[in-house]
Amino acid sequence: MSRKTNRKRIRSSAFSRRASPGSAPGTLIVDPNSPRPIMHVMAYGQERVVEKDIDNVQAIPEFLSKYPVTWVRVTGLGDLSIVTQLGELFGIHRLALEDVLNVHQRPKVEQYNNHCYIVLRAVRQEEGFGSEQISIFLGKNFVLSFQEQPGKYFDPVLDRIREGKGRSRTAGPDHLTYALVDAAIDGYFPVLERYGEKLEELEDAIVSQPTGKFFEQIHEMRHGLLALRRAAWPLRETMNILHREPIPLIDEEERVYLRDCYDHVVQIIDLLENYRDVTSGLMEVYLSSISNRTNETMKVLTVISAIFLPPTLIAGIYGMNFEHMPELKWMLGYPYSIVLMAVLSVAMVLYFKSKGWWS
Amino acid sequence: MSRKTNRKRIRSSAFSRRASPGSAPGTLIVDPNSPRPIMHVMAYGQERVVEKDIDNVQAIPEFLSKYPVTWVRVTGLGDLSIVTQLGELFGIHRLALEDVLNVHQRPKVEQYNNHCYIVLRAVRQEEGFGSEQISIFLGKNFVLSFQEQPGKYFDPVLDRIREGKGRSRTAGPDHLTYALVDAAIDGYFPVLERYGEKLEELEDAIVSQPTGKFFEQIHEMRHGLLALRRAAWPLRETMNILHREPIPLIDEEERVYLRDCYDHVVQIIDLLENYRDVTSGLMEVYLSSISNRTNETMKVLTVISAIFLPPTLIAGIYGMNFEHMPELKWMLGYPYSIVLMAVLSVAMVLYFKSKGWWS
Amino acid sequence: MSRKTNRKRIRSSAFSRRASPGSAPGTLIVDPNSPRPIMHVMAYGQERVVEKDIDNVQAIPEFLSKYPVTWVRVTGLGDLSIVTQLGELFGIHRLALEDVLNVHQRPKVEQYNNHCYIVLRAVRQEEGFGSEQISIFLGKNFVLSFQEQPGKYFDPVLDRIREGKGRSRTAGPDHLTYALVDAAIDGYFPVLERYGEKLEELEDAIVSQPTGKFFEQIHEMRHGLLALRRAAWPLRETMNILHREPIPLIDEEERVYLRDCYDHVVQIIDLLENYRDVTSGLMEVYLSSISNRTNETMKVLTVISAIFLPPTLIAGIYGMNFEHMPELKWMLGYPYSIVLMAVLSVAMVLYFKSKGWWS
Amino acid sequence: MSRKTNRKRIRSSAFSRRASPGSAPGTLIVDPNSPRPIMHVMAYGQERVVEKDIDNVQAIPEFLSKYPVTWVRVTGLGDLSIVTQLGELFGIHRLALEDVLNVHQRPKVEQYNNHCYIVLRAVRQEEGFGSEQISIFLGKNFVLSFQEQPGKYFDPVLDRIREGKGRSRTAGPDHLTYALVDAAIDGYFPVLERYGEKLEELEDAIVSQPTGKFFEQIHEMRHGLLALRRAAWPLRETMNILHREPIPLIDEEERVYLRDCYDHVVQIIDLLENYRDVTSGLMEVYLSSISNRTNETMKVLTVISAIFLPPTLIAGIYGMNFEHMPELKWMLGYPYSIVLMAVLSVAMVLYFKSKGWWS
Amino acid sequence: MSRKTNRKRIRSSAFSRRASPGSAPGTLIVDPNSPRPIMHVMAYGQERVVEKDIDNVQAIPEFLSKYPVTWVRVTGLGDLSIVTQLGELFGIHRLALEDVLNVHQRPKVEQYNNHCYIVLRAVRQEEGFGSEQISIFLGKNFVLSFQEQPGKYFDPVLDRIREGKGRSRTAGPDHLTYALVDAAIDGYFPVLERYGEKLEELEDAIVSQPTGKFFEQIHEMRHGLLALRRAAWPLRETMNILHREPIPLIDEEERVYLRDCYDHVVQIIDLLENYRDVTSGLMEVYLSSISNRTNETMKVLTVISAIFLPPTLIAGIYGMNFEHMPELKWMLGYPYSIVLMAVLSVAMVLYFKSKGWWS
Repeated sequence: MSRKTNRKRIRSSAFSRRASPGSAPGTLIVDPNSPRPIMHVMAYGQERVVEKDIDNVQAIPEFLSKYPVTWVRVTGLGDLSIVTQLGELFGIHRLALEDVLNVHQRPKVEQYNNHCYIVLRAVRQEEGFGSEQISIFLGKNFVLSFQEQPGKYFDPVLDRIREGKGRSRTAGPDHLTYALVDAAIDGYFPVLERYGEKLEELEDAIVSQPTGKFFEQIHEMRHGLLALRRAAWPLRETMNILHREPIPLIDEEERVYLRDCYDHVVQIIDLLENYRDVTSGLMEVYLSSISNRTNETMKVLTVISAIFLPPTLIAGIYGMNFEHMPELKWMLGYPYSIVLMAVLSVAMVLYFKSKGWWS
Repeated sequence: MSRKTNRKRIRSSAFSRRASPGSAPGTLIVDPNSPRPIMHVMAYGQERVVEKDIDNVQAIPEFLSKYPVTWVRVTGLGDLSIVTQLGELFGIHRLALEDVLNVHQRPKVEQYNNHCYIVLRAVRQEEGFGSEQISIFLGKNFVLSFQEQPGKYFDPVLDRIREGKGRSRTAGPDHLTYALVDAAIDGYFPVLERYGEKLEELEDAIVSQPTGKFFEQIHEMRHGLLALRRAAWPLRETMNILHREPIPLIDEEERVYLRDCYDHVVQIIDLLENYRDVTSGLMEVYLSSISNRTNETMKVLTVISAIFLPPTLIAGIYGMNFEHMPELKWMLGYPYSIVLMAVLSVAMVLYFKSKGWWS
Repeated sequence: MSRKTNRKRIRSSAFSRRASPGSAPGTLIVDPNSPRPIMHVMAYGQERVVEKDIDNVQAIPEFLSKYPVTWVRVTGLGDLSIVTQLGELFGIHRLALEDVLNVHQRPKVEQYNNHCYIVLRAVRQEEGFGSEQISIFLGKNFVLSFQEQPGKYFDPVLDRIREGKGRSRTAGPDHLTYALVDAAIDGYFPVLERYGEKLEELEDAIVSQPTGKFFEQIHEMRHGLLALRRAAWPLRETMNILHREPIPLIDEEERVYLRDCYDHVVQIIDLLENYRDVTSGLMEVYLSSISNRTNETMKVLTVISAIFLPPTLIAGIYGMNFEHMPELKWMLGYPYSIVLMAVLSVAMVLYFKSKGWWS
Repeated sequence: MSRKTNRKRIRSSAFSRRASPGSAPGTLIVDPNSPRPIMHVMAYGQERVVEKDIDNVQAIPEFLSKYPVTWVRVTGLGDLSIVTQLGELFGIHRLALEDVLNVHQRPKVEQYNNHCYIVLRAVRQEEGFGSEQISIFLGKNFVLSFQEQPGKYFDPVLDRIREGKGRSRTAGPDHLTYALVDAAIDGYFPVLERYGEKLEELEDAIVSQPTGKFFEQIHEMRHGLLALRRAAWPLRETMNILHREPIPLIDEEERVYLRDCYDHVVQIIDLLENYRDVTSGLMEVYLSSISNRTNETMKVLTVISAIFLPPTLIAGIYGMNFEHMPELKWMLGYPYSIVLMAVLSVAMVLYFKSKGWWS
Repeated sequence: MSRKTNRKRIRSSAFSRRASPGSAPGTLIVDPNSPRPIMHVMAYGQERVVEKDIDNVQAIPEFLSKYPVTWVRVTGLGDLSIVTQLGELFGIHRLALEDVLNVHQRPKVEQYNNHCYIVLRAVRQEEGFGSEQISIFLGKNFVLSFQEQPGKYFDPVLDRIREGKGRSRTAGPDHLTYALVDAAIDGYFPVLERYGEKLEELEDAIVSQPTGKFFEQIHEMRHGLLALRRAAWPLRETMNILHREPIPLIDEEERVYLRDCYDHVVQIIDLLENYRDVTSGLMEVYLSSISNRTNETMKVLTVISAIFLPPTLIAGIYGMNFEHMPELKWMLGYPYSIVLMAVLSVAMVLYFKSKGWWS
């Protein structure tokens, strides 16, 4: 992760692809860099499960009519027409569609007449602490999910449904929604663990040899933690609403599961706050160690001056050209002067030792 | 933006044009520097739309009677009589009129018997991060808006109505109000983006070469961010009320749109808080880098002293005038003394290298 | 404003004139330094208005019986008997009377059976940022106000009633109460403006030449802002209760006006918090500039040492008394040595220029 | 107050005399250092009042049957049997009794079936900012109070009852409870005043001559303020409950008085927060003054070096032993060299004067 | 406690043994390092009590049918099958079982249909401030407790039941649950006391001789306090729910006891916050003392320079080789020069004494 890139991402995260100020509500704007959407349909009931990659929205109604649950998984947001067709097919509000495309939403839940819209932020597992927006629409017999990039967040969910493990196929679309939310949230933990490891390394490094390089790395970490906090705090609010407020499309029984998700988010926030405290603790350690080193440097300078200035004065004195300086004629004048210098220097050293400056 | 001007604006933002303490409630005072009001009427129904610049309030009732929605847009607050006449025409409370003229209100919503009064703060797009007060009165069949200066905030809304796009003409004055609020709020994003860019530049500059100049610029940025926060936080409260509390003049359907506005304000605040954290992070980076540099300077001084003081002492010793100094008569006394000096200096250098001071 | 006085006032503000711990509830204690009370009665109805300075509480019932609204304005709290007589006449609770005399209450509203008691803190306009307690009792047909010192807060209200402007005479005692509260609150703005001006001056001064003198002034400002905050925050709570909670003595219609007062208090608090942020920003600027200057001083010292120590060593070398020093006999030995010194010094200067220390 | 003692008290304040972890709920443990309890009974009605020191709990029922209000005042907690007998006599819950003996409770109110239990923390008036726990049980016709040490908090209350002043004898045990709470709370003010005085002294001292000694005193003060805050904050909560929540044993009329107590606690907290702000302000002043002094010291060093190094170089040059140094033979060589030195030194002085270093 | 170990524990505390992201809800994963579970059953009624170590879950139903209360105490979580069998036997929700095994939960209470699940964090008494998760299931006639390691938290509870003291045997499983919670919470106090002692030692050490070693120890302490806070804050929430919200399985009478537990948790948090404040106070003391020492070092250097540089210049002057230097020929030139040097040095010393640098 280069710092530059990281910061760019932080800033741009709310601006790029935004419609110009004052444009009509529900104006849909597609990011030209976004990959073309790939639609994958998984439809299942207790007995059967089918999966298909489709190109055409027209293929969906058939699944809807035949299976209790149809999950349309869209990867990539680069084609406006597909998104609009999906919106029309499932009767999605234009404002919700706008939020799907403008991938800088805060996590939130919004209830519409016939569907419930959940926005999450999932973190990418690879180096660099990037994050992307996950949009999930929960309807009576469907789940429609959008993600920006191909990512493996949902692979375990797909596998569970294929294998028909546990309640994965018997439960309704609300359970599927829970499974997706849970998968996205669980993805924070490995990233946090990476942060934890880095913090430990930095702590060891800074305590043993505090240099500006590490300070910049801490500054870097703080940037990253800030970004994660911005994603996690509203997520907490979102999960709180999901597991507490009565949402008609979500079964009472699912709420126990959603409460579990909520617990995980709270744990994530706990960890983030903890890392934040540790980070500022490290900054203080770093700053105090600079002050300490300045003091040490100063002591070295003082000791050097104190050892060399007095004998230099003595040498200067016996280098004066007065005609009447009896010592100059002494047989042992020279050794005497050297001893005098040595005594002065040693006295200084002893003085500083007594002050504890000379370890 | 000169700093002086900026600060002046911050301070004065609550004082100028304020009636003297204790004056009667609803005392209307006009800022002599405010431009003369220009009234622009746009009246429309599903089928038709008319626009007209008018000089006389008397022209308005006709529009009101003929069209489902009449939008009176007033630009400039420099004429007391026009404002009072409008107030009388639309039955506006004197306290609300006072707030229109005293352009330093916090964003708020106030419900009166027959109208709803919304105050916003819009940011100007040009350099300098100025802001101005937008007052919007929403009535049964009218919207009355006041702005301080000619600004282009509302141009896209005008265009949409002219072209009759989407619900712009079919919906009532509550939708128009939403559109105006939305346009004003969206105007924050380009300004925030400018801040983000500046912060990135400053971060690069401060990390590579921390000078007091950049520190002052950060201080400057903080001023600006403080001003924006003061505008944005109450805006959040305002939008929260608008989309949550039942306001008779606002249709249930419009609330979904207002919730969207609310989301935008929350995003703005998120960004502002983020920038604030980044700013104080930069301050810490700056301060730690000064300490670091002080330490570096000290090291240079110490090394110089350590290299030159010992040979100077040697030179001083062999400059003494004792009669009995055998070295002085040595054939190689001079080179010997030079070597002695060099050895001492090199020893010092090696010592500092071993301490890691000499990179 | 001398600092000493200011601080004394801050501390004493909760202690002086307090009854000794454990004394009976409602113990009335008069501050001997408080001026003798002056009673001024203003009684009015829609048609008539009378004003009179009275010495005797017995004169009041007549006004009460004849006029719809009677306002008894007491200036000075130095006479216990007058206060008690007023208390008896208007049926005021002893605890409320105790609060009137103990002029260090936090702003609050208290409802009693037949009256409502409002405590405010008004700031004095003159230099020094002093404040005093205003007590207002609102009854069915009277308003009883107490203030510590003769002050002009209420002059505009008096004038409005005399002239019968607006609703000043037609409305009841609740409107009068509003007018008094409004006048007291509006008095904060000029004081805040003074603070704003001082802060701007200090900012200019500190950025251009940071000295300890300015730092002390900032510390001073902080003291003052703290005191204002202590007055303003509970005022907000108070005004919130006044405009929101149903108080029987206050008419529904007056609430719009009280909401306006509330808005002003919120604006005051906004400004105070803003000034506080600016103040701590200035402290940081100051501290960072000290660090910077220390670094600059250090650089000067280092440069001086680096320029003079090497040539001094050269001079010391050629001042040695060895018999065999060929240079000493050179024809151009002296200029050669001077050139050597110059070269060394210039090399040092160039080195520091390359490090950017030499502007 | 020695710092050692103070800190010891802070730490131990939650540990000593605590039953070992896991012991049965309601385990009563007596602190062996606690003084033996002295029981003082005061029983009164409107007409009569009796007082008696008693040794035996058996003497109490007689008072209870004869007088409307019986106040049993226990001073010292050193005897388990007396406490248990009182508990049985008045039907007090074992957990409440445990809290009476474990004198490190936070202030709180607890309602039991037939009594209400109030815990307060009273501050001692003498030097040292110690505090002790006051337990008050309010029953239908009795008040039972416990205090750790003989203290004079309640003397004024005793006196008022003896003299039958005001409502002291006509009101019920709830009024007595109020009077005790009020007396305990009022005791904070003199202690706070002492803090205020000390802070002022410290401020004067630190601004005029900042030394580490004062810094330690501030650190000391902070310790004390922290302890007071820990006592005052829960007290606020407690008083809030007492004056707001309907407690059957407390008459509606008494609530006005309890509201007054609540106001006092809020005032105490206001002052504490203010002192805290002042304290951290002083710390900043101190730290900035150290930085300032370091800079001043550095300037002195730099000026000394700048004045003496250049002439030393000149002297060194003319002390060189070159054969061909024309100046050495000049008639005025010596004064010329001295003048040269003086010029250099003066130039340096002028340079530093121009930089404003030389006042 | 080595720092390394401590930090490792902090980080890992949320990651190890976590199921991979996206795994099915209720996936049970056993930590291979966890000790094999030991099951101990204690069943009792008013009359009888039996205890038995069992290997097989099948042995439990017999106890359940015969005794009013059966307490199954599981120590160690290393065997998945035992945990699942217990889960099935008592009808425990899979998500709750998952939380039992994933020992990094925040303290919480969760109500299920037929049981109530309480998670706590108990601190270990030995050096190192470790903590472990305690899971308690409360059912109609059973309590099922899980702990990670053999620990003595619950020994006093076992003893009380064996001896049938107080209500220990007459009360139901809710009382047992209370006793377990109480025992776990009481275990915090000795650990906190140890912190308090360490803080006192550190304070004495840092005030008398501030070295980096102590600073690192403070940093260490902060780590530990952070970990304790993370355990204690949610514990407070948990206890608040337990004593306030109506939980069918908990008798009204037990709530008084749970309120007592809640009070203890609040006391723990009070102490933690207090220690935190003390810790940051110590950091400030440390940092200010470094600044102070830097200043002292600088003063020593300045004084040394000031004493030795001027006489060195004098010596240099009289070491010049000018032919015409009258002093050189003076009879008393040499002593005169020495006196001159001494005078200069003494003048410098006096100057610094006057500035208060020379104590």
